[in-house]
Amino acid sequence: MRSGNTIFFNNKPRVTSFAAVCGSKECEGIIGSYADITLKDDMYGESTYEKAECKMLSSAISTAVAKGGFTEEDIDLLASGDLLNQIISASFSARQFRFPFLGVYSACSTMSESMLVGAMAVDGGYARTAAAATGSHFASAERQYRYPLELGTTRPPQAQWTVTGAGCCVISAKGKIKINSATIGKVCDWGVTDVNNMGAAMAPAACSTLIQHFKDTKTLPCDYDIIVTGDLGALGSRILKDLMWEKGYDISSNHVDCGEIIYKVIEDEFQGGSGAGCSAVVMNSYILTKMQAGLYKKVLFAATGALLSTVSSGQGESIPCISHAVELEVE
Amino acid sequence: MRSGNTIFFNNKPRVTSFAAVCGSKECEGIIGSYADITLKDDMYGESTYEKAECKMLSSAISTAVAKGGFTEEDIDLLASGDLLNQIISASFSARQFRFPFLGVYSACSTMSESMLVGAMAVDGGYARTAAAATGSHFASAERQYRYPLELGTTRPPQAQWTVTGAGCCVISAKGKIKINSATIGKVCDWGVTDVNNMGAAMAPAACSTLIQHFKDTKTLPCDYDIIVTGDLGALGSRILKDLMWEKGYDISSNHVDCGEIIYKVIEDEFQGGSGAGCSAVVMNSYILTKMQAGLYKKVLFAATGALLSTVSSGQGESIPCISHAVELEVE
Repeated sequence: MRSGNTIFFNNKPRVTSFAAVCGSKECEGIIGSYADITLKDDMYGESTYEKAECKMLSSAISTAVAKGGFTEEDIDLLASGDLLNQIISASFSARQFRFPFLGVYSACSTMSESMLVGAMAVDGGYARTAAAATGSHFASAERQYRYPLELGTTRPPQAQWTVTGAGCCVISAKGKIKINSATIGKVCDWGVTDVNNMGAAMAPAACSTLIQHFKDTKTLPCDYDIIVTGDLGALGSRILKDLMWEKGYDISSNHVDCGEIIYKVIEDEFQGGSGAGCSAVVMNSYILTKMQAGLYKKVLFAATGALLSTVSSGQGESIPCISHAVELEVE
Repeated sequence: MRSGNTIFFNNKPRVTSFAAVCGSKECEGIIGSYADITLKDDMYGESTYEKAECKMLSSAISTAVAKGGFTEEDIDLLASGDLLNQIISASFSARQFRFPFLGVYSACSTMSESMLVGAMAVDGGYARTAAAATGSHFASAERQYRYPLELGTTRPPQAQWTVTGAGCCVISAKGKIKINSATIGKVCDWGVTDVNNMGAAMAPAACSTLIQHFKDTKTLPCDYDIIVTGDLGALGSRILKDLMWEKGYDISSNHVDCGEIIYKVIEDEFQGGSGAGCSAVVMNSYILTKMQAGLYKKVLFAATGALLSTVSSGQGESIPCISHAVELEVE
């Protein structure tokens, strides 16, 4: 069923299991004690950053599948993508598992897009069990989007730090964390061209999707224990709260941003974390563990993504952004 | 409903309308008289190849929407992706239309993946109307994946030519071309490392998906008027026919490959066309027009994609490939 841009899942697919793998820097923070695998060395025994990223994603997938009591044959669909060109981490992970595979891309909102696609497939009876996964690696992202690490480029104060980590959740009919609904995002572009200021670029997309969700579901911010956005960072979160306030929605008391909370001392990482792995690890460790324990009953998860490329920015384009939202509730 | 890796659409979503835009070289061939927009200049009035690619995709989307009698407000979902890093053609097209947008990526099999996602959304009641679209541009693909055009690099005889073109179909409850089922592909990798020989790399993926589809749907090749693969080219098509024959399936009399048939004189383009735009333009002009006219009643469309990147190949990886199939039937 659909109202506005929100899909209502009548059969209430559930998050059956979840897993997160996080890097050495990430495991020092709030998620360290919740993650399933914490790396001492971010190369993860591989010879390149990209292969390390792929291995993290594969580990998150296999761990989530095993934690749910599933075998690889049980998985009818893997919906996954990542930040690397041609989503090679996801494609090469899919090669390893031989799951039926739908590649998705929405930059750092890939976690909520893949959950949305997985929930749609399970709810509609198109898959019994779907895995939704994404990840990112600081070093592969820096190399691809910015500068070689060896250059030691100075980071401006509005910059965020791409998270080294991966997360996966398995969606099926089993479990107590229901997926009630999902709101498909529209692309928002407010003309921000500063590629170091993703928080400012993405905040309007998060605002648009959250308000659409509240309207379509006839809920208010206070109906949720927590409203989780993905990787706006500290500055972007403040912008989002302001934008929401201007539109008559007060999210100040129950909003957290994955990018803002992931690192121990945010000053060191400037505005906090970013990357597809950011919301993936926070959701698939800290948030879902708290839901499973009954500490959060109702969660709205809206990961955010900046849909730029080095070519689009080089050609003078501003940064189009998107946010997809998924509503989760403990039965 | 699901059997094996195949989704059966109980509510039979339909291809309501479709449109194709093709480049100057492409319109000389078989699709020229079927395409909606044929370009005299492949820059399409834009200043860069990438912007021209995005404009083609946007034109295909707006034309398909208009041909179906829809307004932009009617479109509940755009499922789209392309070959450019971070699928900027799709994202920037989605910015223009402000449709709810799911970015997908499966290289040159994006047309069938986006149709599959769109059909799933319409069949399940998650969208009334979904647009599925993709495209590619020879010059932007050469620049990104291979060499600058100015270098005048020699092409080996097993190479294909990336199609300049874009296609879109609109899926809703209206129309006479039903989407019966879709088979989600698994990643196949037979160890091919020659990035100029995509046909050989992708043929096993097409073979795997076609056989899976025949088994799941309890059909045989002869049950289809035509079995359309996407961009295997002349060599890849011959390999596919051989592989199918070895497995006991004879597709020799009713198989066509979009890459093999798109250009007028295949020798000039070596093995024929490739790129996400290849199957997109052939399906959304030649094939669907013939279905609408009743000349083909039942069509199996399996676009094929090579999920490599310049980085994965540079790091010595072989080429993982995928093929998603969609079964169409005229009522």
